[in-house]
Amino acid sequence: MKTIKRGSHDGIITLTTDFGTRDPYVASMKGVILSIAPDTTIIDITHEIEPFNVLQAAFILYRAVRWFPAETIHVAVVDPGVGSERRALAIKTNQCVLIGPDNGVLIPAAKYFGIIDVREIKKKFLDEISHTFHGRDIFAPAAANLSIGMKFEELGPTASNLRELDFGIIEWIDEELRAKILHVDRFGNLITNIPRKLYTEIASKETIMISTTRKTSKIKPAHSYFEGKPKELLILPGSGEFIEISCNKGSAAELLAVKPGDTFILRFGSSF
Amino acid sequence: MKTIKRGSHDGIITLTTDFGTRDPYVASMKGVILSIAPDTTIIDITHEIEPFNVLQAAFILYRAVRWFPAETIHVAVVDPGVGSERRALAIKTNQCVLIGPDNGVLIPAAKYFGIIDVREIKKKFLDEISHTFHGRDIFAPAAANLSIGMKFEELGPTASNLRELDFGIIEWIDEELRAKILHVDRFGNLITNIPRKLYTEIASKETIMISTTRKTSKIKPAHSYFEGKPKELLILPGSGEFIEISCNKGSAAELLAVKPGDTFILRFGSSF
Amino acid sequence: MKTIKRGSHDGIITLTTDFGTRDPYVASMKGVILSIAPDTTIIDITHEIEPFNVLQAAFILYRAVRWFPAETIHVAVVDPGVGSERRALAIKTNQCVLIGPDNGVLIPAAKYFGIIDVREIKKKFLDEISHTFHGRDIFAPAAANLSIGMKFEELGPTASNLRELDFGIIEWIDEELRAKILHVDRFGNLITNIPRKLYTEIASKETIMISTTRKTSKIKPAHSYFEGKPKELLILPGSGEFIEISCNKGSAAELLAVKPGDTFILRFGSSF
Repeated sequence: MKTIKRGSHDGIITLTTDFGTRDPYVASMKGVILSIAPDTTIIDITHEIEPFNVLQAAFILYRAVRWFPAETIHVAVVDPGVGSERRALAIKTNQCVLIGPDNGVLIPAAKYFGIIDVREIKKKFLDEISHTFHGRDIFAPAAANLSIGMKFEELGPTASNLRELDFGIIEWIDEELRAKILHVDRFGNLITNIPRKLYTEIASKETIMISTTRKTSKIKPAHSYFEGKPKELLILPGSGEFIEISCNKGSAAELLAVKPGDTFILRFGSSF
Repeated sequence: MKTIKRGSHDGIITLTTDFGTRDPYVASMKGVILSIAPDTTIIDITHEIEPFNVLQAAFILYRAVRWFPAETIHVAVVDPGVGSERRALAIKTNQCVLIGPDNGVLIPAAKYFGIIDVREIKKKFLDEISHTFHGRDIFAPAAANLSIGMKFEELGPTASNLRELDFGIIEWIDEELRAKILHVDRFGNLITNIPRKLYTEIASKETIMISTTRKTSKIKPAHSYFEGKPKELLILPGSGEFIEISCNKGSAAELLAVKPGDTFILRFGSSF
Repeated sequence: MKTIKRGSHDGIITLTTDFGTRDPYVASMKGVILSIAPDTTIIDITHEIEPFNVLQAAFILYRAVRWFPAETIHVAVVDPGVGSERRALAIKTNQCVLIGPDNGVLIPAAKYFGIIDVREIKKKFLDEISHTFHGRDIFAPAAANLSIGMKFEELGPTASNLRELDFGIIEWIDEELRAKILHVDRFGNLITNIPRKLYTEIASKETIMISTTRKTSKIKPAHSYFEGKPKELLILPGSGEFIEISCNKGSAAELLAVKPGDTFILRFGSSF
């Protein structure tokens, strides 16, 4: 995809938070950004992260950032440790800048692009910094100032030993694959942590069974939802880099009685 | 309303989906659009369409599009048939361009303005097209490319025999009017499929009774909500072209125990 | 915070409503604004105000507006009296313009900045004005026209005797402080109507007890959430000008079984 230089804009800033949209918090961040960088385009990735769920935010950010133009600044504020000693970070990657707390929320997105430089945000942008709302008082003004041309290095000193976060491993044990559900979307589709590149191998098996804590069921390889019959479980390559489990016009999450973070087992063979 | 030429913008693209705002899907579409057309203004019509509810999306789109400036590009993705043989469409009207699947979702809005040209989107914008997310891989890039000046005809060949969709008929039988509830809004107001131009005739009747499957009640003609007493049902000309049924500071949907798609009967006369 | 002149934009218009985001109402307002003022940046403060809850909208607006650049136009539409004799107002302050119904929703924000001029919006922007949707037919076009340079005085005649609204008083009775809960946020934090400047005095007390209708509990002064143990109630200076009551990674609203508008008592001393 070719990236065309933006006209009169200062750039794009995205926001990912667990603030919801009922409270004045997101609007306050936007007001701060527009006060500093009035021509910035602000895009909401989501504000519906489950409160304090850093892993969910990391996953959503990781999935969304790759679709934005070069030089986009992504701000993620899911920050149960606000006001503690946890650091405020800015991570420069090959493609974008990521800004948020040092709790792992930025890590998968940052590693996807490749980390170039990490700074602890020490620069003070407002006269008074609250102890409970660094999204407004630190992260938003940092992003806005970068957006209008402040040098990345001015944010603060180099930071290392970042808090790590990953999406967990998958385990092959004989003809079994143990994996995890990273996300359940609005439709009840399950996004797993099984890399998409394993799809061809999995789909080539004669029979596939899926077992969760509560259910065991046959599951059919497919590429599109419409290939499934009502209440039939499908395993698909998905639209990201992880394999997905779905049900045509139904909720795979309900059928399997699972939620994000749950593990499951795929069993292959002709022995069923 | 006079439409003033936009300054440095590429134009306006609106989005109507059933994706919700918790998942990375809407943000991915916006990232794709801004990567191609960085100065575009993106407006969310709604992402809270009930999953797979094409009729609801068609209604919301139909109600919203008329308020946007000429040359706005409206993208609607409620697409249970994604990945199947259903076509991806772009419809040029006298006022705007509509982009979405060939399942009827675009039809009422398109007919409202008058259809000039319809194309099946065959042009490939991304190297890899997923089977499950054409909003991101086909519809968003088509809209963005139109927004920066791609010719409409370049999208693909002319398409005909579009999948139809309408809001149903109303039936007069003697002193009875049978009609349908198209939409229940956040306040519990019922938007019916009775044309607003019938309001004067209906309001002139001595008495009006409404019957749903579960309830029968008197209903009072009014123009504003405040004219109603608590729990009193009102019939209003509404703010669109369909007659509405409301309750002052209350939910008509709860009082009548109805939901979108339900039918009801209005009875007129002095015989009650 | 320095405010930089916006490039090619007409200005910023914010929206605060109880319309939700499922219906075509918010998008219709945005379409109207962009039809008149195509280069305006539109920011949603929230559309999730509880239906008809003027006090909640007044509070959210009051909290958010201070963070926006000078000359921002704020539109608030929580308007149970739409279509009645209640006036449509525009209030010019030292910092911004506020537009909405004369039901008090604009008052706390207006007083925060200082009122310079108030007009009753009498100018007719659309050919037909509905009785039920002045957000689209009056408030949005008024804001958009101001945004592209219409003189404030052209909106209509000077208005006085505005409908008042305030956040209630707090009462000190001996060693007791009686106050009110203004807002419960997504995390269950309680925003009270106790001014932040009283925090130091309150925090200096040896012991603090909080009593609601249903619960009495000890409460600990803190600055950040992380200072609290699980299920421990905290009293914090907060990030606005009101004292807040919170629970680290938990909901103070649930622990105290309270909702917005509820009163509570703080008791101080060593007598417990």
